[in-house]
Amino acid sequence: MSVETRAPAAGRTFETLYTEVQQFYARHMRLLDDGAAEAWAATFTADGSFKLPSADEPVRGRATLAAGVARSAAALAEAGEQHRHVLTMVEVSPREDGSLGVRSYAQIIATPRGGQPRLHLMCVCSDVLVYEDGELRVRERVVTRDGDA
Amino acid sequence: MSVETRAPAAGRTFETLYTEVQQFYARHMRLLDDGAAEAWAATFTADGSFKLPSADEPVRGRATLAAGVARSAAALAEAGEQHRHVLTMVEVSPREDGSLGVRSYAQIIATPRGGQPRLHLMCVCSDVLVYEDGELRVRERVVTRDGDA
Amino acid sequence: MSVETRAPAAGRTFETLYTEVQQFYARHMRLLDDGAAEAWAATFTADGSFKLPSADEPVRGRATLAAGVARSAAALAEAGEQHRHVLTMVEVSPREDGSLGVRSYAQIIATPRGGQPRLHLMCVCSDVLVYEDGELRVRERVVTRDGDA
Repeated sequence: MSVETRAPAAGRTFETLYTEVQQFYARHMRLLDDGAAEAWAATFTADGSFKLPSADEPVRGRATLAAGVARSAAALAEAGEQHRHVLTMVEVSPREDGSLGVRSYAQIIATPRGGQPRLHLMCVCSDVLVYEDGELRVRERVVTRDGDA
Repeated sequence: MSVETRAPAAGRTFETLYTEVQQFYARHMRLLDDGAAEAWAATFTADGSFKLPSADEPVRGRATLAAGVARSAAALAEAGEQHRHVLTMVEVSPREDGSLGVRSYAQIIATPRGGQPRLHLMCVCSDVLVYEDGELRVRERVVTRDGDA
Repeated sequence: MSVETRAPAAGRTFETLYTEVQQFYARHMRLLDDGAAEAWAATFTADGSFKLPSADEPVRGRATLAAGVARSAAALAEAGEQHRHVLTMVEVSPREDGSLGVRSYAQIIATPRGGQPRLHLMCVCSDVLVYEDGELRVRERVVTRDGDA
């Protein structure tokens, strides 16, 4: 069973937090872009939520998160298109309860088989990350998409 | 009154400097992209200068810097366009006087309301950052734009 | 003569490794984009190899690596085009032998003189980095390009 240590950020320096967050996102986005649905969903907490710009309500829980990615991966494979999530401009705000507020920019780059890459979407990502058993996980994510009214 | 401590970099490890610089730029560019003109200008020193590729002379001082961003933000809002400054490839060179030379790449991504994002500009950014009251600030910035003759 | 210290990663914390890797890539890619062929090749080990997506066999050794970059730089200068390698999403995996496995994404952005930047290529970069005389160097690189069959 996962135990969320209270205020684990308190025991870490800023540079440790910041580099661990960057490494976390690198792995997290690679799993997503590789279509590794279950492994990706495991980087959320058990009750983790993800509010997509196109949805009214957040997706919640690993099974639902994994199912969504599996569907997207199948659709992209069918279309012969590779997506890459390039997350940059990470701003980490440690909170009193030991969680981390993290804001970032995310470019989604799409490349069709045999074709040229294009900048598909430009998003802003607002996460709450927590440490569980020493590993970072996403407890809450809200993504907004530039160009939306 | 702000006091610029002499050689503050000396008391910081490279990993502390490097992560503080990345966090600084994440916040700095978000303020710019949000059109928070005054807060953005406050991340420069009082006499901070900014040489834009389109100008012969640098803009100098917070009031002038803030006025420029306020004008740009109004023009973008009028045009219904969101800009994002994605600064990457940060190279930090600590200097003897405690300031930091920082070179980076900056992509500017523009998204019109209801439309698709496009890569608007690709720039190289050369900054001199200093610590004032424990906070990083831009003392001098020179930006060049790829494609210029 | 260069001496590759065994397991140098052992003496470094994760945050030190991670920031040194980021700084290394910032300089490494700037040398490449500036066409500084010899200086760029010196950031590989003497027997360093680079497997390009378009080639069947890796390029090996500094002289060959430098010659390749010199040719590319001359061709880009002739065409009046600037390339920028934007390497992000760095995932560092320290290995038992002291080397670092590093996976990352690399956008190549091209800007013609007097024109607009475009996203030219989207790549995945798999490196093995080692410390030699306290400096990071590439011992092995394999790059794949999105869109390839």
